[in-house]
Amino acid sequence: MYNQLKQQVLDANLALPRHNLVTFTWGNVSGVDREHGVIVIKPSGVEYEHMTVDDMVVVSLETGKVVEGTKKPSSDTETHLVLYRAFPEIGGIVHTHSRHATIWAQAGRDLAAWGTTHADYFYGAIPCTRRMTNQEIAGEYERETGNVIVDTFAARGITAKDVPAVLVNSHGPFAWGTDPDNAVHNAVVLEEIAYMNLFTSQLAPDLGPMQQELLDKHYLRKHGKNAYYGQ
Amino acid sequence: MYNQLKQQVLDANLALPRHNLVTFTWGNVSGVDREHGVIVIKPSGVEYEHMTVDDMVVVSLETGKVVEGTKKPSSDTETHLVLYRAFPEIGGIVHTHSRHATIWAQAGRDLAAWGTTHADYFYGAIPCTRRMTNQEIAGEYERETGNVIVDTFAARGITAKDVPAVLVNSHGPFAWGTDPDNAVHNAVVLEEIAYMNLFTSQLAPDLGPMQQELLDKHYLRKHGKNAYYGQ
Amino acid sequence: MYNQLKQQVLDANLALPRHNLVTFTWGNVSGVDREHGVIVIKPSGVEYEHMTVDDMVVVSLETGKVVEGTKKPSSDTETHLVLYRAFPEIGGIVHTHSRHATIWAQAGRDLAAWGTTHADYFYGAIPCTRRMTNQEIAGEYERETGNVIVDTFAARGITAKDVPAVLVNSHGPFAWGTDPDNAVHNAVVLEEIAYMNLFTSQLAPDLGPMQQELLDKHYLRKHGKNAYYGQ
Amino acid sequence: MYNQLKQQVLDANLALPRHNLVTFTWGNVSGVDREHGVIVIKPSGVEYEHMTVDDMVVVSLETGKVVEGTKKPSSDTETHLVLYRAFPEIGGIVHTHSRHATIWAQAGRDLAAWGTTHADYFYGAIPCTRRMTNQEIAGEYERETGNVIVDTFAARGITAKDVPAVLVNSHGPFAWGTDPDNAVHNAVVLEEIAYMNLFTSQLAPDLGPMQQELLDKHYLRKHGKNAYYGQ
Repeated sequence: MYNQLKQQVLDANLALPRHNLVTFTWGNVSGVDREHGVIVIKPSGVEYEHMTVDDMVVVSLETGKVVEGTKKPSSDTETHLVLYRAFPEIGGIVHTHSRHATIWAQAGRDLAAWGTTHADYFYGAIPCTRRMTNQEIAGEYERETGNVIVDTFAARGITAKDVPAVLVNSHGPFAWGTDPDNAVHNAVVLEEIAYMNLFTSQLAPDLGPMQQELLDKHYLRKHGKNAYYGQ
Repeated sequence: MYNQLKQQVLDANLALPRHNLVTFTWGNVSGVDREHGVIVIKPSGVEYEHMTVDDMVVVSLETGKVVEGTKKPSSDTETHLVLYRAFPEIGGIVHTHSRHATIWAQAGRDLAAWGTTHADYFYGAIPCTRRMTNQEIAGEYERETGNVIVDTFAARGITAKDVPAVLVNSHGPFAWGTDPDNAVHNAVVLEEIAYMNLFTSQLAPDLGPMQQELLDKHYLRKHGKNAYYGQ
Repeated sequence: MYNQLKQQVLDANLALPRHNLVTFTWGNVSGVDREHGVIVIKPSGVEYEHMTVDDMVVVSLETGKVVEGTKKPSSDTETHLVLYRAFPEIGGIVHTHSRHATIWAQAGRDLAAWGTTHADYFYGAIPCTRRMTNQEIAGEYERETGNVIVDTFAARGITAKDVPAVLVNSHGPFAWGTDPDNAVHNAVVLEEIAYMNLFTSQLAPDLGPMQQELLDKHYLRKHGKNAYYGQ
Repeated sequence: MYNQLKQQVLDANLALPRHNLVTFTWGNVSGVDREHGVIVIKPSGVEYEHMTVDDMVVVSLETGKVVEGTKKPSSDTETHLVLYRAFPEIGGIVHTHSRHATIWAQAGRDLAAWGTTHADYFYGAIPCTRRMTNQEIAGEYERETGNVIVDTFAARGITAKDVPAVLVNSHGPFAWGTDPDNAVHNAVVLEEIAYMNLFTSQLAPDLGPMQQELLDKHYLRKHGKNAYYGQ
């Protein structure tokens, strides 16, 4: 069972090194089957080159318990579960330590919308969470990591659909999408934006956000009912 | 019909990922057949690895209507058309979001001529357009993108032949040339210059433009009637 | 004899160019066999593409004399020997001039712990040694290079096990691990952190160290008796 | 005749793209046969992928006239000739627009000796020439480019043997060596140093030169009669 989703999740995980988003095993992708109430996620600490479809771990969306699979799921599984529960519109999640997104996460700074590359995918700034409290870190750390993401979106009044990525302070990025493949796609775009914004900020230290009209134009020509990009 | 131009345009599009100028489908190349009054352009949102010569779209230079082809043309087609109409000396156009040219576009800054690499291809600074107005963005956006480029060249008193590229503010670069292949060539040089100028400006924050004599020497040894570079 | 260790050391040396840690022959890996009191190390100035298992040089851990092999050992052999003697818990050592770690070494600055990527591998800042004295340079230079590393760890009160890398001032990095392969692994992580910290420091010039609780959490979930990362 | 040297020069030219030192045809390598008073150099504007041994051009060291070959020699040939005449100890020369060396040349700044990577190959700072005068540019430009290099070495009191590279202001690097292959080797090191110094200067804006004792130690352990590096 779940073979199709397992294959999608495996493929999406293997796409990470191909897009230069991971070093060693520093990344994981999951997908959700909401009908059956499970997620499929990469096993913990297994190298991409040796990973097979049977290594994928099936975990209950409700209880977090392993439903199928012989390996331990990614240590970040609890974070994924919190996001799937809070954001019913998402179908896949990626976590990496991709270089430039991580640089902004370490600096604790949002990624402002500074150009149409950003606007084609993200409807406004990509937020960086606050630092976690010592209590959160000492407690159910991976679950609290999910909670601080959800809180950040609530506090900013933004939706996971319009802004499909976040930077976790002192840690690194999470991205998501309609399915595992789309989540990886957004993680690639995030890394590209993080690279470009790093040096844009050096050339234009006082740059304000891009024009709202341009942000609207580009985001809405690719998303929503009036989209006209693509075939 | 137009098979030769379609092949040239396809080849030029496929050269974009080979030169690391594009992520996913973020780029498009077109070519013009002025005798028959048409341009050939990449279809919208099709992946490079699956693109064939039959996917290329033929569009009327005058009306902007599709003349041949089953796919929708690039969403940037109207920008290309404006440029072909305004600049009769150009035969191919490239648009990308290549990393470093886009960084300068996001920062809203010209690329000054700071060395002979620049002078071998561009006869002076590569301009960045002004921001588009809200009216331009809300109106015929892609056409207005072309117009702001044309206006920039007119206002600066520079020709499309001498400066075969531009940065569109908050967006990214367009480059052009005598044919699609030459346009890609210039897009590669533009990206190289954008990279080098980024860090040159950090090492020499107050650097003025290079000597006019050196700019003349290098540009004119490769272009015009006294050129002596190459076979 | 020592064929298994020679093979491990060869494999680890060949991993350096694969991980983009070396230019030409600028790197060397060694491994130790503490039972027999020898180390195996790369020969001096031999190109990676032509290196074979028989080129590996066996050197006495006590005397530093060649025990087996027809080639001269790496000119950095004495540095390796000092580290193996001072740090009984390590099984492999890598020295490279990898770009970003070397940048920090040239700048004479520690690598602060600024994120969980760091905390997953290094329990606190990665130190940069003081400059060597003229006497040390003019004397047994390679041995003194080892001594200044050992002194740095003693002065800081840190262990080679918790912080498996160092930057040698005006020179470049050394990393180590439980065996030659693990040492290369840590050298890759070090280079990754050096890259990310370079630009983190530009985005957040006044950034203090990461929270101690987060450093503890990540380091201890991968190391020590309560580790729960991996299979 | 000159087939062996032609092959060496071809091989060295083909090594440029392999080491990522060139875009398109932006580089050239030559070698000298002092016994017969000729140099062999890359033809002008020919792509590396189509270059054959028969494309190499033989030019008289004394007169600068083509002695053998059907193609025009590199437009930089006169610069090479000036260097071979002024520096009798060199056997090969490379000119590129490699990214980071060119960045320093555009900024008009020397590459200070800041670490042992530098000291292993260059005995002190790599100089950047002064800007050329308008008269020099308008006159025998390529020859004057050579002259300003030679003048720079004379004015600084440094030898081409001890410092086998230079940055030509507003232009890019030249490197040289005992033969064409060694010249390319030095061009690779130069580019590596240029990269590392760029970011070293950002981490340590007030960094002075490295210790003279360390420069001596590393340079002299690889060069001169007391060298002990390599087999």
